Amino acid sequence: HFILEENMLEVDCPCVTPEVVLKASGHVDKFTDLMVKDEKTGTCYRADHLLKDYCTEKLEKDLTISAEKAAEFKDVLAVMEDYSPEELGAKIKEYGITAPDTKNPLSDPYPFNLMFQTSIGPSGLIPGYMRPETAQGIFVNFKDLYYYNGRKLPFAAAQIGQAFRNEISPRQGLLRVREFTLAEIEHFVDPENKSHPKFSDVSKLEFLMFPREEQMSGQSAKKLCLGEAVAKGTVNNETLGYFIGRVYLFLTRLGIDKERLRFRQHLANEMAHYAADCWDAEIESSYGWIECVGIADRSAYDLRAHSEKSGVALVAEEKYAEPKEVEKLVINPVKKELGLAFKGTQKNVVESLEAMNEKEAMEMKATLESKGEVEFYVCTLGKNVSIKKNMVSISKEKKKEHQRVFTPSVIEPSFGIGRIIYCLYEHCFSTRPSKAGDEQLNVFRFPPLVAPIKCTVFPLVQNQQFEEATKVISKELTSVGISHKIDITGTSIGKRYARTDELGVPFAITVDSDTSVTIRERDSKDQVRVSLKEAASVVSSVAEGKMTWQDVWASFPHHSSAAADEQE
Amino acid sequence: HFILEENMLEVDCPCVTPEVVLKASGHVDKFTDLMVKDEKTGTCYRADHLLKDYCTEKLEKDLTISAEKAAEFKDVLAVMEDYSPEELGAKIKEYGITAPDTKNPLSDPYPFNLMFQTSIGPSGLIPGYMRPETAQGIFVNFKDLYYYNGRKLPFAAAQIGQAFRNEISPRQGLLRVREFTLAEIEHFVDPENKSHPKFSDVSKLEFLMFPREEQMSGQSAKKLCLGEAVAKGTVNNETLGYFIGRVYLFLTRLGIDKERLRFRQHLANEMAHYAADCWDAEIESSYGWIECVGIADRSAYDLRAHSEKSGVALVAEEKYAEPKEVEKLVINPVKKELGLAFKGTQKNVVESLEAMNEKEAMEMKATLESKGEVEFYVCTLGKNVSIKKNMVSISKEKKKEHQRVFTPSVIEPSFGIGRIIYCLYEHCFSTRPSKAGDEQLNVFRFPPLVAPIKCTVFPLVQNQQFEEATKVISKELTSVGISHKIDITGTSIGKRYARTDELGVPFAITVDSDTSVTIRERDSKDQVRVSLKEAASVVSSVAEGKMTWQDVWASFPHHSSAAADEQE
Repeated sequence: HFILEENMLEVDCPCVTPEVVLKASGHVDKFTDLMVKDEKTGTCYRADHLLKDYCTEKLEKDLTISAEKAAEFKDVLAVMEDYSPEELGAKIKEYGITAPDTKNPLSDPYPFNLMFQTSIGPSGLIPGYMRPETAQGIFVNFKDLYYYNGRKLPFAAAQIGQAFRNEISPRQGLLRVREFTLAEIEHFVDPENKSHPKFSDVSKLEFLMFPREEQMSGQSAKKLCLGEAVAKGTVNNETLGYFIGRVYLFLTRLGIDKERLRFRQHLANEMAHYAADCWDAEIESSYGWIECVGIADRSAYDLRAHSEKSGVALVAEEKYAEPKEVEKLVINPVKKELGLAFKGTQKNVVESLEAMNEKEAMEMKATLESKGEVEFYVCTLGKNVSIKKNMVSISKEKKKEHQRVFTPSVIEPSFGIGRIIYCLYEHCFSTRPSKAGDEQLNVFRFPPLVAPIKCTVFPLVQNQQFEEATKVISKELTSVGISHKIDITGTSIGKRYARTDELGVPFAITVDSDTSVTIRERDSKDQVRVSLKEAASVVSSVAEGKMTWQDVWASFPHHSSAAADEQE
Repeated sequence: HFILEENMLEVDCPCVTPEVVLKASGHVDKFTDLMVKDEKTGTCYRADHLLKDYCTEKLEKDLTISAEKAAEFKDVLAVMEDYSPEELGAKIKEYGITAPDTKNPLSDPYPFNLMFQTSIGPSGLIPGYMRPETAQGIFVNFKDLYYYNGRKLPFAAAQIGQAFRNEISPRQGLLRVREFTLAEIEHFVDPENKSHPKFSDVSKLEFLMFPREEQMSGQSAKKLCLGEAVAKGTVNNETLGYFIGRVYLFLTRLGIDKERLRFRQHLANEMAHYAADCWDAEIESSYGWIECVGIADRSAYDLRAHSEKSGVALVAEEKYAEPKEVEKLVINPVKKELGLAFKGTQKNVVESLEAMNEKEAMEMKATLESKGEVEFYVCTLGKNVSIKKNMVSISKEKKKEHQRVFTPSVIEPSFGIGRIIYCLYEHCFSTRPSKAGDEQLNVFRFPPLVAPIKCTVFPLVQNQQFEEATKVISKELTSVGISHKIDITGTSIGKRYARTDELGVPFAITVDSDTSVTIRERDSKDQVRVSLKEAASVVSSVAEGKMTWQDVWASFPHHSSAAADEQE
């Protein structure tokens, strides 16, 4: 659905990652959760979880709280993601929150890094971490990937593999675990052109979207047309919109219920400062709306961070058809004068002058020319200094350029595979009454595409003739790559159907002759008669999506419902 | 090839493994290599590598050594795997081996555990390791897997994933790395019946085998018939033989040259004490014969080890059709008498008595009856004690048993995927002269099955009509799941063919009209003409093995060699 469709490069990077890579990406310093400890037992808890649980419980169960207090708890829930350790600690103290298991007092919150640490090689001196995401492996290999792609943009690289997060308190069943399968796509694109040639393939799609404004104003998600959402600027750009559409098609094709799937835009406080826009595909489950896919425009942040740390330029070029004459800003600090004026802090002043953008520099030039002096803020000193006319020369020069060199933006769809599969189990689970009406039978309505077992084969009764025919069919199913299960128990055929319905097997072949068989479809319970020879290829065609069950139903004689009744 | 063919269960266990699991498996205590340190710089080396390099270099390059000395070096190379740390250290001292980089003296050898260690959870108190193999995850889940398989033997579970080994000195390019992809099959079987119903499918295969005896007597590998090797007992049992045959078919189907593939039996000193038999599929590469797949009968060792540590029985049952009357050995130590005689060591004596097998017990019974007393070795005390007739009663009792309970044996094919792929690159690499004969062109002759890119599409010249047709073909290739690459550069078609030959792409579609195209096969360079509409489905049929290139060659008009010449 993704790799072949976009001709993506596939990579497989190691899980054990040297510290320098994760230092550059910011994970060593910032990939933390705030933790509190039970002061007597030492048991650890996530500070925000305790505060969240406290406020939620008060709101849901305490009927005595005032409207004012309720509003306060709601406000805390809304803004707590932005709390500093001190603010979080103050709230925990204020509400008198204690350790849930022992009621002991809690320590102040402190940051706990979520990466599993290890040491690489025999010396014990090279620290490493288990990767917390797969993306960094793609970023550090950007130079080679760009080369493999013939030095052309846009292109994407994709990776699927394990990611590791040493969660303080795993919870919510299989949704928050310490090791999980991530699939990530890093689509590199010219920041000046984020259009997408295939956007029209998805622009007509309509599905539940939940933009920032609707969340802030207390509305709920609503059906929007993707093309309009991009046109109105609700979604930042076409490429981001294209991937949102492709993710929608992917999830619904797997079997996710489109009424329980929404795309929620990150609020300003959720989003990294460098991100241009970010949407989560959220799937509703018994645990609430679960973030299963994140689709973010991360701008040029990641490639720049690795470039800065490694000194290796991670850039792309656009060759001009004709050389272009461009005006270039030239800032020449006069080091002698600056040294006399600022002595030990000269270096800070020089760096700040050189870092000015065109607008700032041209304003300074104008002020210096009119007044001979200007107040200038040096951020690394945290104060203003006075710059005089003889301390810096600012000019614009004309140059011929043959190409534009730039750091690509990256648009990243990132899939939590385990979470998607968990939600798929919930969405595909259903019950129906047994024939006698005395019990509810469980059915997993997995689409054939994702059902782990595609087909079961039942000899109707235990005899050699049927078992031989079963073997023939099994061999053919194997040769066409169809996973299947054989049930040769003497149990009634109805019970055997119920058993594989519960496993989510979409098709069952019942062998009741050595020349022809019945094929039953799980959801409709419809049955057709097919010759022994064709059985495997019919199942494989439907399982692989080359034909639908409707096609099969139209092409083969139906198994009479009387006979079917007899069996079930 | 494996999973569907044997209806194996598929599992995906975590990489981060709690210490207790790897304590039970023996890895915490024994998964070590002997390491020496440069005494001045602290640089670490594998002790056996240094000794091996020293002996090999002496044998290969030092023409002055005596025949006696040469024999000694050869002997050291043959037996060094069995050396204790002390013996290895003594040899290093004797030969005056120093650190290769600095010539500094070396420390004594000491064991270094090859597992990457980490800590699980926020407390820092739960040690864990990155799994050094995937197998243990299957063993600890045996109980559930057996249940999923309907409590029937034999069955197999398979897993593919990352394994981690903190090698002291990674070497040999990509062959010895610290993180790699392992694929392991654990086939559980009744130890009393290791026959295999499908053995006849592989018994006629003949390929290079290198049994223990041939290695010990200095012969080389020779072609043996697998069925005969099992019948003669060279290979321990049918199931082991079946998997050897299946591995042979797998590797050759991937494109491994059968003349550079051999199955080498482990020597007695290479094999774990519990293993019944073990064969390595070794592939010859520029680094020599490389172990790529290990196929071992590990008996019941692994399941027993986890049972003992966890106290959970990992067993299978065989229900008898009729209850069986069996004679059961009953050993009843008389604790009162033993307590009087042995006081504090009574427990050791009781355990040793109870642990006797039938033969030992019946011999003791006979001696006690004839002599009234017997000398009995208690291994946990390390000495003999005197057992008198009143201290133990030994008898045989008849019981009715309804089932037999036993620990299954496990037969384990274990695949180093990276090593296989590396060898595949070497075996598929070839060169051929360019048309003009002035250069050697590189070709990767990957079989279509494994070629990462199946097809390239070239518009013959750059024009809109051909580019549109190229897009149509590309879309169809995507819809049938065929990975492909489009080369729209204006380069000559011959150069474009050479470029994709070097990438190992088996088929190239050249678009030179908007109704029909040519398809060229990489190895023969033969070309056929196919209608635009059929192109994708023809390529997909050959790439997926549904038809051969010979079939295509027989069914479609050949592209005249004159025209082909013109192009190349």
